[in-house]
Amino acid sequence: MSAGFESMWAELLPIGRDAGSGGYRRSAWTGADADCRDWFEAQATARGLTHETDRNGNQWAWLGDPTAGDAVVTGSHLDSVPDGGAFDGPLGVISSFAALDELRHRGVEFGRPLAITNFVDEEGARFGLACVGSRLAAGQLTREQAYELKDADGVSLPQAMERAGHDPENIGADPDRLGRIGAFVELHVEQGRALDLSGDRVGIASAIWPHGRWRFDFHGEANHAGTTRLEDRRDPMLPYARTVLAARERARLAGAVATFGKISVEPNGVNAIPSLVRGWLDSRAPDQETLDTVVTAIEQAAEEAARSDGVDLTVVRESFTPVVEFGHALRDEMARLLGVAGHGEGTGRRIPVLGTGAGHDAGILSASVPTAMLFVRNPTGVSHSPEEHAAEDDCLAGVTALADVLEGLACK
Amino acid sequence: MSAGFESMWAELLPIGRDAGSGGYRRSAWTGADADCRDWFEAQATARGLTHETDRNGNQWAWLGDPTAGDAVVTGSHLDSVPDGGAFDGPLGVISSFAALDELRHRGVEFGRPLAITNFVDEEGARFGLACVGSRLAAGQLTREQAYELKDADGVSLPQAMERAGHDPENIGADPDRLGRIGAFVELHVEQGRALDLSGDRVGIASAIWPHGRWRFDFHGEANHAGTTRLEDRRDPMLPYARTVLAARERARLAGAVATFGKISVEPNGVNAIPSLVRGWLDSRAPDQETLDTVVTAIEQAAEEAARSDGVDLTVVRESFTPVVEFGHALRDEMARLLGVAGHGEGTGRRIPVLGTGAGHDAGILSASVPTAMLFVRNPTGVSHSPEEHAAEDDCLAGVTALADVLEGLACK
Repeated sequence: MSAGFESMWAELLPIGRDAGSGGYRRSAWTGADADCRDWFEAQATARGLTHETDRNGNQWAWLGDPTAGDAVVTGSHLDSVPDGGAFDGPLGVISSFAALDELRHRGVEFGRPLAITNFVDEEGARFGLACVGSRLAAGQLTREQAYELKDADGVSLPQAMERAGHDPENIGADPDRLGRIGAFVELHVEQGRALDLSGDRVGIASAIWPHGRWRFDFHGEANHAGTTRLEDRRDPMLPYARTVLAARERARLAGAVATFGKISVEPNGVNAIPSLVRGWLDSRAPDQETLDTVVTAIEQAAEEAARSDGVDLTVVRESFTPVVEFGHALRDEMARLLGVAGHGEGTGRRIPVLGTGAGHDAGILSASVPTAMLFVRNPTGVSHSPEEHAAEDDCLAGVTALADVLEGLACK
Repeated sequence: MSAGFESMWAELLPIGRDAGSGGYRRSAWTGADADCRDWFEAQATARGLTHETDRNGNQWAWLGDPTAGDAVVTGSHLDSVPDGGAFDGPLGVISSFAALDELRHRGVEFGRPLAITNFVDEEGARFGLACVGSRLAAGQLTREQAYELKDADGVSLPQAMERAGHDPENIGADPDRLGRIGAFVELHVEQGRALDLSGDRVGIASAIWPHGRWRFDFHGEANHAGTTRLEDRRDPMLPYARTVLAARERARLAGAVATFGKISVEPNGVNAIPSLVRGWLDSRAPDQETLDTVVTAIEQAAEEAARSDGVDLTVVRESFTPVVEFGHALRDEMARLLGVAGHGEGTGRRIPVLGTGAGHDAGILSASVPTAMLFVRNPTGVSHSPEEHAAEDDCLAGVTALADVLEGLACK
């Protein structure tokens, strides 16, 4: 297994890697994404799996009859945030193929159809909305809404699909396809340090925190930075700065997270007081009530700061995903399988069950399909960065765990 | 006079105006700039003046012998900041032509050569350095340094000059030309509210505040905004925000100004803690000591904030211009002329003399040539913005004042 695992990494690692940053630039429907997709199809073909691309651009590699129903599906995504790490997404896809190799090596007999997937545009780096492929399939993003998405260059999602050779005409909800899935399991590198702190290689997801994005538009008045008296200014950078600090403090007090990671300034000149500072808040919390409390407090702080600087503020919620509680039946079944197989209970060791602040295709699909997630230890917790890392031993432990789960679910 | 004044505005106002913002986009050596330059040459030709473009791209319209020496020169610039106003620059050039028309209408006889100028690239909007045309002429920017300047698209200054039809080969210090100037007077719209507050239409400049630009690079660690615990973050947006607020406070306490109007964030993704926040500080003060005190205090606040958030900070001074005190002889002569003519002393009213935080070509030239400035009232103080404005009556008062000064200096 280790040899196939390593050769898959060797083929995938150079694709879309930026020589300067060392990070990955695999935005959806770009050339780098196309190379990743070609790699996926080649992996499927090499294993004698039936490759297909669904109407929404998601890739499927089938073992057994795709139309039989009650399929066991595993996979993740291959796209990245700008200058993202090597593991976020690809670890799940590579581990899926490696787990299949392991099951064949074990000589098991499959009793249910098995599929490996690559969901398109999970990160939402290009069009600003995450999990586009799974949202479309699950009917959580309509064709009309998807047609309105544009990238920073004004290229629309359907245009980008067309340029990449995918017909966008029939994108949209795909209930028949999702109805044939009996269980979906996504393996992912952990994006925090819970497993590192608990000393475990592998964990099971309990829930995905509710999370959302809010755009704060601070409208001031452009003016000369050298000649305008401080008392005559309506400088939107000041309430923006106060809001950044208030967001951190409010999140800290509530046990939530809040981040201003994206900003756009007009005219963005060194000697010009800005007319507009647009900042995006990303906030997440263990539960809805906490998140509401935090975001409301940040909005109030922003309004107060804007008022005191003579600046106008509008706040728009650009996206929101409620809490996702993964179903207990599949989660408990996985804990049992991993315990039996020696990962957890059978060794006297409980498989840790942890929540996460990150969104995933598994979170989207959980509304339509029994869904679960496996996390692999991340020793630094760093993610969405070239420094993202997972140790090879931990990754191999993840493959074994995934193979054990698939064997338990799909094999006679 | 009024008719010519109005028709000059009517021809110039549409050039480089953005229909969306209503502001001007007349960066140096662009098509809009070329149209402004054509307009200048046409104004010169229509008045029988000798038009020439010097080695550095500055335009001159001569009445009398350019080589005779002891010339009286007036003018300003025609380029703009992005989405700048209509008056910053063009008011000085138009008023120069209108003042010449007024002097001819008065039937005066010129005893010294007179020239009207358009200094190229005053705003520095495209290549990041202000007053390029006058700096080159005055030897404050060398040919080698100018060749290193690049715009946001990577086009170098000499490439831009060539594309606009200007040979960059011989740019550089032009002491012979400057040596033939006996006095330079620049009329400019005020970029603050001092005249509005004192109730005067026209004022005389005393000094240009020392000013500079500093780049603050806050280096943190990119990470996932949803899954990274607050205590594990090295988020550079936080010390940036603290520095913005510290800058305002330190400037307020010292009677200076300080502005963060430009920012660049990497990777600038909604769900990514930034790896880098780069903010540019523009700061100015009435004197050098105050400016040093303010900027040092801001740097200390930034260092402290960066340290407490685990962020690395580097500060680079990108440009600096020391205080410019306009010579008292020319300034006093102008005050006397304007008093005699009924603008000030003669009417029992003193012509206000005021400092300014804005850089000007006059400030650059003052090191080589006796130089003075006239300001025209700006009722709101707004500048570098589409809302920049001056009342027609005040503009006409400016033309009359400039004509009075030129008559006193250049006529028998």
